[in-house]
Amino acid sequence: MAVYKKIEIVGTSKVSFAEAVKVAVAEAGKSLRHMSWFEVVEQRGSIKDGKVDDFQVTVRVGFKVE
Amino acid sequence: MAVYKKIEIVGTSKVSFAEAVKVAVAEAGKSLRHMSWFEVVEQRGSIKDGKVDDFQVTVRVGFKVE
Amino acid sequence: MAVYKKIEIVGTSKVSFAEAVKVAVAEAGKSLRHMSWFEVVEQRGSIKDGKVDDFQVTVRVGFKVE
Amino acid sequence: MAVYKKIEIVGTSKVSFAEAVKVAVAEAGKSLRHMSWFEVVEQRGSIKDGKVDDFQVTVRVGFKVE
Amino acid sequence: MAVYKKIEIVGTSKVSFAEAVKVAVAEAGKSLRHMSWFEVVEQRGSIKDGKVDDFQVTVRVGFKVE
Amino acid sequence: MAVYKKIEIVGTSKVSFAEAVKVAVAEAGKSLRHMSWFEVVEQRGSIKDGKVDDFQVTVRVGFKVE
Amino acid sequence: MAVYKKIEIVGTSKVSFAEAVKVAVAEAGKSLRHMSWFEVVEQRGSIKDGKVDDFQVTVRVGFKVE
Amino acid sequence: MAVYKKIEIVGTSKVSFAEAVKVAVAEAGKSLRHMSWFEVVEQRGSIKDGKVDDFQVTVRVGFKVE
Amino acid sequence: MAVYKKIEIVGTSKVSFAEAVKVAVAEAGKSLRHMSWFEVVEQRGSIKDGKVDDFQVTVRVGFKVE
Amino acid sequence: MAVYKKIEIVGTSKVSFAEAVKVAVAEAGKSLRHMSWFEVVEQRGSIKDGKVDDFQVTVRVGFKVE
Amino acid sequence: MAVYKKIEIVGTSKVSFAEAVKVAVAEAGKSLRHMSWFEVVEQRGSIKDGKVDDFQVTVRVGFKVE
Amino acid sequence: MAVYKKIEIVGTSKVSFAEAVKVAVAEAGKSLRHMSWFEVVEQRGSIKDGKVDDFQVTVRVGFKVE
Repeated sequence: MAVYKKIEIVGTSKVSFAEAVKVAVAEAGKSLRHMSWFEVVEQRGSIKDGKVDDFQVTVRVGFKVE
Repeated sequence: MAVYKKIEIVGTSKVSFAEAVKVAVAEAGKSLRHMSWFEVVEQRGSIKDGKVDDFQVTVRVGFKVE
Repeated sequence: MAVYKKIEIVGTSKVSFAEAVKVAVAEAGKSLRHMSWFEVVEQRGSIKDGKVDDFQVTVRVGFKVE
Repeated sequence: MAVYKKIEIVGTSKVSFAEAVKVAVAEAGKSLRHMSWFEVVEQRGSIKDGKVDDFQVTVRVGFKVE
Repeated sequence: MAVYKKIEIVGTSKVSFAEAVKVAVAEAGKSLRHMSWFEVVEQRGSIKDGKVDDFQVTVRVGFKVE
Repeated sequence: MAVYKKIEIVGTSKVSFAEAVKVAVAEAGKSLRHMSWFEVVEQRGSIKDGKVDDFQVTVRVGFKVE
Repeated sequence: MAVYKKIEIVGTSKVSFAEAVKVAVAEAGKSLRHMSWFEVVEQRGSIKDGKVDDFQVTVRVGFKVE
Repeated sequence: MAVYKKIEIVGTSKVSFAEAVKVAVAEAGKSLRHMSWFEVVEQRGSIKDGKVDDFQVTVRVGFKVE
Repeated sequence: MAVYKKIEIVGTSKVSFAEAVKVAVAEAGKSLRHMSWFEVVEQRGSIKDGKVDDFQVTVRVGFKVE
Repeated sequence: MAVYKKIEIVGTSKVSFAEAVKVAVAEAGKSLRHMSWFEVVEQRGSIKDGKVDDFQVTVRVGFKVE
Repeated sequence: MAVYKKIEIVGTSKVSFAEAVKVAVAEAGKSLRHMSWFEVVEQRGSIKDGKVDDFQVTVRVGFKVE
Repeated sequence: MAVYKKIEIVGTSKVSFAEAVKVAVAEAGKSLRHMSWFEVVEQRGSIKDGKVDDFQVTVRVGFKVE
């Protein structure tokens, strides 16, 4: 039967939460193959000079173990 | 006094979480009248070829019972 | 040692969750200085005529106490 | 073996949380038979002119499937 | 220093959640002394003939250990 | 777009949870205008001489920022 | 884009949690097509004469909306 | 009105989670009468020599107070 | 197979959370044998004259049933 | 003092949740030594042709760092 | 009846979590009177050069409203 | 934009929770560079001969991916 692992990764973006997820997944893809899904675990961000500076999304990425 | 029901529905979008919510609400609107609010319950998505393939948002939609 | 306070604020936007967060932070910035980060606590929204009317995001904003 | 379904319904009352539960269950009873139990999921309410205007209770109602 | 224990007890009432809590605390008082506080853990109830039959409240009761 | 703040307040009552919520909201209303909704966060209480002494309800009160 | 709905259903079994899930899904399948996945929400059961009488599993079943 | 108590007990089994629940309930039955239901609180287990050694299930057992 | 019970106990200390745990476990040890592990459930404390007066830790203590 | 790491892994089985845990642990054992315990984090599964197709269990596996 | 408010504050310390709580409470005491209790909400910290740099504790502080 | 990973690690100490966190972070630092923060996930410990034997803290450690 299939087995999957999950790792936790935090992406950041100046634009949106969706963009931050894409950044996280793209980075994870540099060292992982067979990524299959992600789950949003936490959404936060930093503030600078009274404005949102970036969006930070923690995702769990699931990938198939060969 | 007013009574509401809630149903749970999952919308998907290639673009963003907000878009996925709109898709879910629009679909729910085909069979429900008097929808009043939504609550985001879960955010996840699928990955294909090392990139985010779609965003999936589970929302609870509340609507008034006549 | 540094001390921070957190307040809870709800921003709304017709466009997206990210936009609603920016609205909340900008409003908080009118009365607070030294804001440092935000945490998303809840995401919901209103529906009107069968369509998403606005996105509502509750954020906790952390700021340094001088 | 027995099978049950659960639906989620929100009752409101000017008086109390218990009353709001009764309203929710009575409404559910118009279209469901064999209701067996309820679980309180959320308690909130609206405020008007500086006073509690109503109590809102979300309950999950379980009923037997024949 | 003071030490407390907590036990978990379920009270039921035909009338309200508050009443069910009183029933649970009164029962606990038959075998415990020095009860100090309670915490509501869960609220549910049974339904009979399409109406709320009773309210059930699970409380954790804290009492001082002599 | 509209912005809301939330504060957390604890009301107490000898009678019921609903009463405790009313006490909390009435108190909050002394210093806040435009209160719009409340959310129940926690329910507990104190015990004295083996009987419930009071009901304590923590509510988050949301109010519009002008 | 694809849209899914979720319903909540409770299966029971004298044998195991896995069996109770199968019962719930089989029952749901009588009225739903295109069921795609389930999520376990709660596991409990009844006791009779000092022994486990049955296993009860609440699952959320997701199915595609055509 | 009826009053119930809950205790928390951990059963272990070499075979399955269901078996571990049965072990826990059977043990509880040695000192308790009128047990009525159980709720699964936690599932874990130990590993030995790279294989699952046992399944451990924490259940809350509810029993009627006479 | 082994069976364990868990009880919930609150220790207090003027010094630290770790100290409060030790106080709780030591107290539990007066009436229990074969205690095996503890789990921190809640951390709070009282304040007096603007300073922390004590640290209160609720722990669940697991012990083997013979 | 001893230090442990935890990884998250998803096992699948056609038969039961217990079997899916065994599959996950066995797979983890191919690359890890000194595995000591597992914690069940999530239970779900897929449905095909109106029947449960497989059981999926996410476990956190703890192992000693040498 | 008595009414309390809660605010959320983050204390930091180079030494321990207990110390960080004291820092938070002491700071809160500069602007609040009648503080009565605190609840630990979150524990985290920063790392610098491979070592724990500080402990950060978020506490909710409850104080009586006169 | 910056990307972070999080791993989960359990430190143990005979002395305190803070010490256990330091142990965990120090161990993680042997194989990771650019560690930036930690989050406390769970606090438990073992008991031996009726006394706390050690404190165990599970932390998530975040580190920058280069």
